[in-house]
Amino acid sequence: MFLEKNIDVLGIGNAIIDVIANADDAFLENHNLNKGSMTLVDETISKNIYAEMKNKVQMSGGSAANTIFGLSELGCKSAFIGKRSDDELGNIFHSDLVNSNIIFTTSPLDTGEPSARCLILVTSDAERTMATFLGSSSKLTLKDINEEQIASSKIVYLEGYLFDPPEAQEAFQKAAEYARAHNAKVAFTLSDAFCVERHRKKMKYFIENHVDILFSNEGEIKSLYETDVLGDAYTFLKDVVEVGVVTQGYKGAAIIEKTTIHKIEAFSTNVLDTTGAGDFFAAGFLAGLSKNLDLIKAGVLGAACSSEIISHYGGRPEKNLKEYIKNKAGLIL
Amino acid sequence: MFLEKNIDVLGIGNAIIDVIANADDAFLENHNLNKGSMTLVDETISKNIYAEMKNKVQMSGGSAANTIFGLSELGCKSAFIGKRSDDELGNIFHSDLVNSNIIFTTSPLDTGEPSARCLILVTSDAERTMATFLGSSSKLTLKDINEEQIASSKIVYLEGYLFDPPEAQEAFQKAAEYARAHNAKVAFTLSDAFCVERHRKKMKYFIENHVDILFSNEGEIKSLYETDVLGDAYTFLKDVVEVGVVTQGYKGAAIIEKTTIHKIEAFSTNVLDTTGAGDFFAAGFLAGLSKNLDLIKAGVLGAACSSEIISHYGGRPEKNLKEYIKNKAGLIL
Repeated sequence: MFLEKNIDVLGIGNAIIDVIANADDAFLENHNLNKGSMTLVDETISKNIYAEMKNKVQMSGGSAANTIFGLSELGCKSAFIGKRSDDELGNIFHSDLVNSNIIFTTSPLDTGEPSARCLILVTSDAERTMATFLGSSSKLTLKDINEEQIASSKIVYLEGYLFDPPEAQEAFQKAAEYARAHNAKVAFTLSDAFCVERHRKKMKYFIENHVDILFSNEGEIKSLYETDVLGDAYTFLKDVVEVGVVTQGYKGAAIIEKTTIHKIEAFSTNVLDTTGAGDFFAAGFLAGLSKNLDLIKAGVLGAACSSEIISHYGGRPEKNLKEYIKNKAGLIL
Repeated sequence: MFLEKNIDVLGIGNAIIDVIANADDAFLENHNLNKGSMTLVDETISKNIYAEMKNKVQMSGGSAANTIFGLSELGCKSAFIGKRSDDELGNIFHSDLVNSNIIFTTSPLDTGEPSARCLILVTSDAERTMATFLGSSSKLTLKDINEEQIASSKIVYLEGYLFDPPEAQEAFQKAAEYARAHNAKVAFTLSDAFCVERHRKKMKYFIENHVDILFSNEGEIKSLYETDVLGDAYTFLKDVVEVGVVTQGYKGAAIIEKTTIHKIEAFSTNVLDTTGAGDFFAAGFLAGLSKNLDLIKAGVLGAACSSEIISHYGGRPEKNLKEYIKNKAGLIL
């Protein structure tokens, strides 16, 4: 299926540092944050929320970047395109990716704009609420899309959050065109129900015309098709993409392949923080596809990776992911 | 025992940000780091190691500061004295403590020296190896020791690492004198076997003359008394301090009270990273003492807190510590 391609998955997304802390519902209300969702904030609001967070943990994040990191940990050759500045947070992000053997050649922005940060507030129900200041990550442009790297990739993976910054939309439209021209599959994640609401029309058009593999959770796919009935969303989905993946929390996931719905069970684990659950389902699933596993095995791999990430704080794995999936799901890549 | 004291525990220690990442043994060897120990490094070496770390997690740390944070989470009124600069890392450290209701009034250093950082390399055996650049935290002086706060404290807790910077030695000598004058107990932790080796003579003198409660692990106490026989160390210990606590990893801990040795069992847990194990044993134990629990109950509380911290990355708890000790050890503070 993928001949002469030396990159398994190339991700394009926001280059973001996560700042994680515990918070209660009152904290979210005080700052007008929607529980369980991502709210875009400006630099001032970001600074104000940051100043009130206690016992903060900082680490590299970003939805597509998390997925790419997971793929690399699973032994897949991976690459990332995203914009950061040459500042402290931007340099942490860059060195974390490069030190993990991920190809990351996007030049940093030099306008003085600070690098992006995502403040993640974890409530005692393990739900995570995000306030994102996009900073330089929103300055991704056409020039940053490396055609040669896309041509060398089996799968190009794009995050829905990239619909927020206007210039980035152009950039990843171009990425999808390059992918088509060079016989790479296009995978896309809806990212967030509110993000879908902000860009529903454009997203639908993009999915119908460019996307082969679509990732979403229940809320996001219902929002995309403006329905409360999951089955209706599946019906739309089966006609527009080759493979649709709908993650469903503790209920597992559904993989929609034309008229067939494959059900994948979740692995039981002690859930502490759901940050990265979707990103790591995608990592496992795409790792499976890039190694020519069938959809069900790829789904099990996704569910296993997901169970590692939700058992602790933060969107990057704490355990050796290859060993973890071997022990948890008996899968060797 | 503690009348009219409104601070349960006041900690004095280095104000440090931890930077945590996985590493293998070769990484440690390449940088001449002693596995399981803390090595002091200068700014350049710190920068070089940092640049090679992948998937870094940054969070507030510091041995005594971790203990004080744990005490605050357990519901004890606590305070901290330590030196940081008015820079990004220093401000993270400050806001984390203040937002956790910890009294922290030490003025920041204004000489341009950067705040301290501790690079923590976690190997697959869950052992942690540290490279510390002390920066401004080594500039703690007599002037920073707040007599009024010490007078209001039941227990003053000092970390052995403070023997490294010469000026700080003076400062915490003074703190111990204030404590004695104002009827506060002095608790001290040996911190690290190599730190003991560097300052053995001075430490012994300090312990004999100022310390009521001594914390150590097996390696540290053996190093202090230059013996391979743990029993011999206990014999020395029983005559010089009121209470000696020796933590022993998965074997639990021993509490030496004159001629009696109380054995405390470790709680079983999946050990991922031992960072903070000793700090949180001390937090639980001191919380117990400050609430007038007996030594055995205080020890069980210490063991329970320790088991939380070693089950995940980093030296600060992920779970609500009060609920955790209630579930794990049936203890309510």
